[in-house]
Amino acid sequence: MLQVIDLHEFLKDERVRCAVKVGSIIRYTMAEFLQNKGFIEIPPVIISPVTDPLAHPIFNGEISYYDNKYYLTRSMIFHKQMALLAFDKIFCFSPNIRLELAEKARTGRHLFEFTQLDLEVKGASREEVMQLAEEMFIEILKRVKECCKPELEKLGRELKIPSRPFKRISFEEAYNEYGKEYEEILSSEAKEPFWIIDFPKWKREFYDREFEDREGWLADMDLIYPEGFGEALSGGEREYKYERIVKRIQDSKMDPKEYFFYLEIAKRGLPPSAGFGIGIERLTRYICGLRDIKYTTPFPKIPGKYCI
Amino acid sequence: MLQVIDLHEFLKDERVRCAVKVGSIIRYTMAEFLQNKGFIEIPPVIISPVTDPLAHPIFNGEISYYDNKYYLTRSMIFHKQMALLAFDKIFCFSPNIRLELAEKARTGRHLFEFTQLDLEVKGASREEVMQLAEEMFIEILKRVKECCKPELEKLGRELKIPSRPFKRISFEEAYNEYGKEYEEILSSEAKEPFWIIDFPKWKREFYDREFEDREGWLADMDLIYPEGFGEALSGGEREYKYERIVKRIQDSKMDPKEYFFYLEIAKRGLPPSAGFGIGIERLTRYICGLRDIKYTTPFPKIPGKYCI
Repeated sequence: MLQVIDLHEFLKDERVRCAVKVGSIIRYTMAEFLQNKGFIEIPPVIISPVTDPLAHPIFNGEISYYDNKYYLTRSMIFHKQMALLAFDKIFCFSPNIRLELAEKARTGRHLFEFTQLDLEVKGASREEVMQLAEEMFIEILKRVKECCKPELEKLGRELKIPSRPFKRISFEEAYNEYGKEYEEILSSEAKEPFWIIDFPKWKREFYDREFEDREGWLADMDLIYPEGFGEALSGGEREYKYERIVKRIQDSKMDPKEYFFYLEIAKRGLPPSAGFGIGIERLTRYICGLRDIKYTTPFPKIPGKYCI
Repeated sequence: MLQVIDLHEFLKDERVRCAVKVGSIIRYTMAEFLQNKGFIEIPPVIISPVTDPLAHPIFNGEISYYDNKYYLTRSMIFHKQMALLAFDKIFCFSPNIRLELAEKARTGRHLFEFTQLDLEVKGASREEVMQLAEEMFIEILKRVKECCKPELEKLGRELKIPSRPFKRISFEEAYNEYGKEYEEILSSEAKEPFWIIDFPKWKREFYDREFEDREGWLADMDLIYPEGFGEALSGGEREYKYERIVKRIQDSKMDPKEYFFYLEIAKRGLPPSAGFGIGIERLTRYICGLRDIKYTTPFPKIPGKYCI
């Protein structure tokens, strides 16, 4: 079976050349922004006995080594929390492997391998990391406009710097107004990025913190791109107390045994924190105004296809 | 079975805290140095139908997705060559998974997951990338001395900036003088990093370029750390012509069918290039003067052990 992309043609495509250049500047600007704020960059974790369960269906990526079972990283959420045992503010350029269902190829925004800038701050509130995200987002847009003028011109993309603070809408409000397709509708109508906050438990993974005084609702958020580009970033405050984590795993109808290694560490203490992860290829796609995410990387991994 | 590291104790260890901070500065300095020289950072590839065969025994890391077979990246060598179809100079912070034999845990310099700064330059000679490596290496040492003074003090490490050009010795000379253990002996005796050049075919992978006028010998190099810290960097000029690559694969007693995807692309043309890969954890280990590489990352993957 042949791999699906004609790589010679693909790598000649101006969209790829421009978008990969933009992605390179995005990565560098992120690192610079966070280093200047005193964040420590930690090495990525690619295989581990624990990884993000994710809130949508996916194939497991498993390997065995000396009879020990490892998962390919779907996100570094648990490792971020654990790294805060040593540092106050950390980030990572974290490659994620998510073996998506083939139908996700149609969304234009799924790859089965991508990089997430993942960060976590000890003792921070959701509000603080939202401020940080807005500031970083604007810094990136400014830098790309400055360093990638020819690329944006070739792509026919005009970028407007959004004003802060970004607008906010609660999940409840959004869902009541627009129903199931709330994200798509709101993203398509929007001219600037905006936040959706306070997701319900049934929509999210067990690690986002549930409000003590509002059962079933979470201290978390998504950043949504305008012009129909959809989700940018997911984050929130975290559950960090052992008993609460176990309860939340059980509420999600999962088996705490699957998180044994993580729970053993949580039992001895994890710090409270907040953080987020932002997909670099999706950010590149938005900044470049490309409808298909495949142009943002030289070796796109298209759901369901055989890709080099 | 329990994971092997007591993470709470480990992450309290000053060696880990200092070394991870140093590693963070190393990553940033590398990105800055290469961005300033016009390199484009490409996203890492984690799974692919083709990866580095490596010249030493290792377990295969394989996964299957929609009945297609993927390997975990052991190095991005082939993807670096292919990326030069779009760009002149590229680099990548490339996580490598190398499922090493358990005995490698004893060397103090093997992890089964680590990050390599991997770069490749279209049309470059070995000489040019050696110059680049020396310049970058010195830039990193200077920056770490400047930004990580407290960390180096805690580690009791005094760093001397080496003088350029670094010394060179050919493999043949080294082997004739010191025999099989040439690298260890030379590294232990050295006070400054040095190059070993011109490896023989039987020591290396098929992708390093064979001299046209000196059959069996390659236009490649290793950088070796002093004080017994061993190999720093491996690189060279590359085979890029289809027929020569096929011949070199056959010379290595491998089956060209295993490199089908890569060969299909080489058949339609790859540019000549040179480049290298340098392990970030090993560089951190050397700079920090640590005998065990495990301290350089919050979640070390120790060969043969179960690690989170």
